[in-house]
Amino acid sequence: MLPTPKKVTVVAGSGEGDHKLTAFDNALLAAGIGNLNLIKVSSILPPECELVERLDIPPGSLTPTAYGSLVSDVKGDRIAAAVAVGFSDRDYGTIMEYSGHCSREEAERAVRAMVEEAFRRRGMALRDVRVAATEMVVGDRPGAVVAAAVLWY
Amino acid sequence: MLPTPKKVTVVAGSGEGDHKLTAFDNALLAAGIGNLNLIKVSSILPPECELVERLDIPPGSLTPTAYGSLVSDVKGDRIAAAVAVGFSDRDYGTIMEYSGHCSREEAERAVRAMVEEAFRRRGMALRDVRVAATEMVVGDRPGAVVAAAVLWY
Amino acid sequence: MLPTPKKVTVVAGSGEGDHKLTAFDNALLAAGIGNLNLIKVSSILPPECELVERLDIPPGSLTPTAYGSLVSDVKGDRIAAAVAVGFSDRDYGTIMEYSGHCSREEAERAVRAMVEEAFRRRGMALRDVRVAATEMVVGDRPGAVVAAAVLWY
Repeated sequence: MLPTPKKVTVVAGSGEGDHKLTAFDNALLAAGIGNLNLIKVSSILPPECELVERLDIPPGSLTPTAYGSLVSDVKGDRIAAAVAVGFSDRDYGTIMEYSGHCSREEAERAVRAMVEEAFRRRGMALRDVRVAATEMVVGDRPGAVVAAAVLWY
Repeated sequence: MLPTPKKVTVVAGSGEGDHKLTAFDNALLAAGIGNLNLIKVSSILPPECELVERLDIPPGSLTPTAYGSLVSDVKGDRIAAAVAVGFSDRDYGTIMEYSGHCSREEAERAVRAMVEEAFRRRGMALRDVRVAATEMVVGDRPGAVVAAAVLWY
Repeated sequence: MLPTPKKVTVVAGSGEGDHKLTAFDNALLAAGIGNLNLIKVSSILPPECELVERLDIPPGSLTPTAYGSLVSDVKGDRIAAAVAVGFSDRDYGTIMEYSGHCSREEAERAVRAMVEEAFRRRGMALRDVRVAATEMVVGDRPGAVVAAAVLWY
């Protein structure tokens, strides 16, 4: 099987670019994950996965990541993204991500509420929640927000 | 290279939640795949991949999965998802997934027809098709459907 | 960790099908990647990743791929997809993909400009760019375009 990740780091960032995809690229760079090959996953914190504050992954690595992102080229748009990782006291956890036309606080509230709902639904106790979030107002160039729970080794 | 999966299991499920993403989470739980890290793949049944009825995968595992899903928060919406795995008698097969505003039967018909087309196009004989499908009518809360061919080891 | 790819191949193709997903399947087959399990990645060329002209991967393999694609069932639509891989002279590179309602030349220009922007942003020198692109005009059946940088071993 594929190796199960052992570490998790939560990050968020915003960026602008000449194109939508380079705005996304710059948001990833701002979040510290712009030089990785992100593989989108949905979205469980593996058991015994350790929270690590600082990423240390070689460029180009295939990196399982749960993330929410949004790109806009509408000047004046407020966009936000947030991710929450819920830690259980004895087992796996859950990861929830959100992006939308809202403030950072609203995005944070949404992901926290989703993690709480996911734990309730599973009958599990929530020991801790770690959140990363970002927002921006789109200017003359396309803008992007991303919030990610990076799963690594 | 990444290890090629050796087993396939087809599942489907529907769910409701307070948010769109938790509705999707609950649909995954109903399908029996809510505690995995799904990695979306497009969508070939590897040669010698064995059909297994019951999943047995530890929580948090990185799990290659071909799936179709749909989430709606429009009360009264009928939504459906289906997946079909086509088995050849001598080689790899194909996987097709579909989701839409339709009945479970329509979604099933669509994925069956797509697998047949994919086999014809490749000049391969279709030995067997395995389908999983689900439908729901959205109520007061967001609803989600998912149908998946899980590839594992 | 997951193994970092060592080879890159750029391909593009167009196709038609009875359904949107089989049109996509046929575009993948035209590009020479229709029998793989593509895992979408965003989108870095790993260091020391070698450009190889011809793919040689067993069917069903899990294959990290950066790709842009577009499917349309609107008769007369012109659709195009392009991918560009930027090679640095000493380190990792970047991959950019694009799809839209435009010509092949416009899609190519977009991905070239995005790779140049990504290198500028990183303060890196661009040694070479390799592009693959395709376009089609949708007819009576759904049509699809795909352009991909396949990362393999």
